[in-house]
This record gives sequence, structure tokens and C-alpha cells, in this order.
Amino acid sequence: MRARDLAQPFPIVDLDTDALQAAATMGRHDLPGLVVRGADGLPLTVIPASQVLRFVIPAYVQEDPHLARVYDERAADEVMHKLAAATVADVLPKKHPDTDELPVVDGDATGIEVAALMARTRSPIVVVVEDKQIIGAIRIGALLGQMLPSDPPTA
Amino acid sequence: MRARDLAQPFPIVDLDTDALQAAATMGRHDLPGLVVRGADGLPLTVIPASQVLRFVIPAYVQEDPHLARVYDERAADEVMHKLAAATVADVLPKKHPDTDELPVVDGDATGIEVAALMARTRSPIVVVVEDKQIIGAIRIGALLGQMLPSDPPTA
Repeated sequence: MRARDLAQPFPIVDLDTDALQAAATMGRHDLPGLVVRGADGLPLTVIPASQVLRFVIPAYVQEDPHLARVYDERAADEVMHKLAAATVADVLPKKHPDTDELPVVDGDATGIEVAALMARTRSPIVVVVEDKQIIGAIRIGALLGQMLPSDPPTA
Repeated sequence: MRARDLAQPFPIVDLDTDALQAAATMGRHDLPGLVVRGADGLPLTVIPASQVLRFVIPAYVQEDPHLARVYDERAADEVMHKLAAATVADVLPKKHPDTDELPVVDGDATGIEVAALMARTRSPIVVVVEDKQIIGAIRIGALLGQMLPSDPPTA
């Protein structure tokens, strides 16, 4: 079993993708993050859904649970509209994305190689690249499903 | 919209749950982690799927991508069988689980309060507790889907 066989389609955004569209994609597919593609077509970084929330929710509300509780619904609408005026590049942390940490494998990688990479980086997802293009991603749950004995006990 | 309305069923394991069963549950539901319940019925910590891989894959294979590539399928089977002899408690990191960091809200928490907690802790999931029992969990993707304007652009 090679990485190319394990790779599944995974939503990808670009730096100039509308931030609201990126958040809507996370919402529609119930995803904890999206892969961001660089201008060269290769994976650049991952934008975690929590980063979207860090962008739209004022820092003083994040830090104070009591303030968050009284923050009204209308204010909530307003913070989400902040996304409409932003791009993925705006939402990413200001420090330069650390591409060294982005878990990427080539299509030839074995299942155990993917598992070792996830273990080392503690990443729940690995991006698969072939011929300098992103062909999909492997989610850790799907990999565990493949690796386990064929007759696991029921949970 | 309150946390109790946003909470969805989420697989829970106990410290003495069979580790293979826990991994199989992650695989079956394609989950990046499971909530671990303490003896008091309250959420104790989260066991990330990557921690399962850190437990079964020898450290020298994790650290060396070349070794991982030549690690054969049979060896892969063997490492997965390590799980059969272990419990969730064995797989958890040796340091005492840091319960302060576990994102938990009560059923009355507002959507924005849940969002603020996810933003602050960078957690993609929040556990909902009511009457000293876990009633479910809120995934960040599902929360974003609820918070967004009703007519988001298509991605």
C-alpha cells in the first residue's frame, strides 16, 4: 500500500482565496483545517480552523470567558463578516509559514512511512505530492483503518 | 445557540479500554483523536491518533524516513499487534495528563464562547459536560458551519 493509493481528495485553497469561502469549505466538509497551495502548485502550509477563529474573535474576548458569554449574537455575526473582507493570506499567522514542518510525502511512500511521519510530527494529516502537484491527502483515521488487523474488536 | 444544542455524539474511551479497540474506533469513524473519560465520569484528556502511532512505531523508525521506507509489511503488522496487549492508559504520554488544557464547556455555553475557547486553546474539539456527565462534543468544522452566514459563497 503506497501513499498514492491512500490519498483522498482534500480541499485546497490558495493564498488569495476568499477567507469566507475557505471557512465555508471547512464548515461544509466538517474539517479542522485546509491545505494552502503556494504559487508553485506545491503545498505551502496548513490553515487550521482555529486560526480562522483567532482571526475573527477579538483577543480580549478570547482571553475572557465571561466576556465571551455576554458577547451577543449580533456581534457574532459581525465578527464572521470580517472574513468577507479577507483572504487566506490575511488569516494566516503573521510569521512566515514554516514549510519545514508541513508533512508531505511523495506518492511512492509506504503506509508505515506515512505513519512514521505522522508520529514524528504529531500531524493528523499528510499531503501527497506527485509530479510536483498535490494529488490529495491522507487522514490519520483513514490510515489507522487501513493498518489495523482485518478483524478488530468492536468498540 | 447553546453548547448543548451544538453537541454531537462523540466516541469516548476509558483508561482501561483496550488500545486496539480505541484505534479501531478512530479508524472506523475517521477521527484524529478520542476523548478519555476519568473514573469520575468527567473528561480527563484527549488521546490523539498520532499518539497511537508514536506508541506502536519504534522511535528509531520514526526518526529515520529511510528506515521507515524499508520497514516491511510484516513488521507493520507486528507493531499494530502491540496495541492488542495495551490499554488506553499505556498509550497515553507518561506525563500526567494536563487536565487544565482540556477544552470543556457546560451545556449553557454560547456558540461564541465555544469559538473563543477553541481560538484560545487552538483545539479543533470541545467537550460538553452537563450534570457531571459528558453529553457530547463540538467539532470546529461543525461550529463554523453554524456560525457562517446562511448563504456562503461556494468553494
